[in-house]
Amino acid sequence: MDGRLLIMGGAAGPALLQRFVELAGSAAARIVVIATASETPETAEAAYIEKFLALGAGEVRPLRLSSRSEANAPGVEPVLRPATGVFFTGGDQERITRVIGGTTADSLLQALVGDGSVVLAGTSAGAAMMSGTMITGGDGPGGVSTGPGLEFLPGVLIDQHFAERGRLNRLLGAVARYPHELGVGIDEDTAILTDGDRFEVLGNGAVTVVDAGCATDIRVPPTGPIALAGARIHVLPAGYTFHLMGRQPAAERGRAA
Amino acid sequence: MDGRLLIMGGAAGPALLQRFVELAGSAAARIVVIATASETPETAEAAYIEKFLALGAGEVRPLRLSSRSEANAPGVEPVLRPATGVFFTGGDQERITRVIGGTTADSLLQALVGDGSVVLAGTSAGAAMMSGTMITGGDGPGGVSTGPGLEFLPGVLIDQHFAERGRLNRLLGAVARYPHELGVGIDEDTAILTDGDRFEVLGNGAVTVVDAGCATDIRVPPTGPIALAGARIHVLPAGYTFHLMGRQPAAERGRAA
Repeated sequence: MDGRLLIMGGAAGPALLQRFVELAGSAAARIVVIATASETPETAEAAYIEKFLALGAGEVRPLRLSSRSEANAPGVEPVLRPATGVFFTGGDQERITRVIGGTTADSLLQALVGDGSVVLAGTSAGAAMMSGTMITGGDGPGGVSTGPGLEFLPGVLIDQHFAERGRLNRLLGAVARYPHELGVGIDEDTAILTDGDRFEVLGNGAVTVVDAGCATDIRVPPTGPIALAGARIHVLPAGYTFHLMGRQPAAERGRAA
Repeated sequence: MDGRLLIMGGAAGPALLQRFVELAGSAAARIVVIATASETPETAEAAYIEKFLALGAGEVRPLRLSSRSEANAPGVEPVLRPATGVFFTGGDQERITRVIGGTTADSLLQALVGDGSVVLAGTSAGAAMMSGTMITGGDGPGGVSTGPGLEFLPGVLIDQHFAERGRLNRLLGAVARYPHELGVGIDEDTAILTDGDRFEVLGNGAVTVVDAGCATDIRVPPTGPIALAGARIHVLPAGYTFHLMGRQPAAERGRAA
């Protein structure tokens, strides 16, 4: 995975959207908006098309994928192939995996992101679906449910609206179940931007990384609270980077860790 | 501090209240209920008196401390001195510190808990006030406010209704400011029971311990999100113990860590 992913925790402000437009090429950008997660895709598409054009994107168009047959249709490739940026809106992340998972659109996106020709961005549900393992519901440590995401960022489990909705407990529950996965909670108007094996934090909130890899004792009973002793946690605002393979944060450039 | 503290995260069910009655001596118990935190102390007193009597407590009486003059009055000692258990209800923890802090009632409670003649219990606000440093408000990582508690458990910063109100972010914000303090978040119907330098987890939820002592990088700007890299986190259900000085959890008895 050499392509860049811009993964937003929801309620992205102009600075984050601007960054996406710039990464996609600004006036030379050809951006595709996919609102599959939304119950009202027309509205979501129109809103983001207007925003990206206002931020200087050269060309923005929607790709309506409301069914698996649409996601497998021959019309998908002529839209995605020339794109320099693809943006997934919020809504229900399970609609994205159910409608797009394994289709022509999925495979093509993986290829285009993999060869670096597309920067892939998503907010909220469009962020969650980037995960290797995706949170699909639940809020207590005992109640979290998960399923496979589209795996643009394997080995990572993304949660969104993180501080705003008090979701650290469900993220802890998820990484206790799957300590291979690094838990990444992204606040609203905050994003991670991947670059190979590392990501950088952008925006006005923080990114909380929960690492259960070093936990000394994990217990996940069928009901009742989990046990998770000795995990590590990092709260990282803008400018901090995190190395995924080494599972280590680094301070912003110009600052000692 | 050799006395035992039973610190409940709110909404304590019969099993936790029963444990308190037993620790206070069951039929031989002389329990005092202090509802200073409550806006309607009569109601809170009556509710707990009824519960403790129903659970087999020999004697239960209220001690109404609504003002500093009441907390300094000569009538306090004859009520507290013979007590085997003292219970603080929920409400507003700042009412407790404002009304009782530094008074005769405060000093006497410290002495009675210190010499082991009283088990001191509290729920919700009555738990928060046990802290060395007490959370007084705020919910985002940037917004938490703190002040001194009554310090029955020094070096610890207690938060309550923990999973239910999604409060890990504010606890992270607090320990980032004060990494000397160990953050202890207690779920509803869950408690810690101290025994010298350790505490045991009781009840149906979990206790989340956040340890910023090992953090490699902490930044708390005047506004905006904190940075806290390399902290440790432990989620501990019933049966687990935690050693305060060593800052280490241990698995329940009979289980390997």
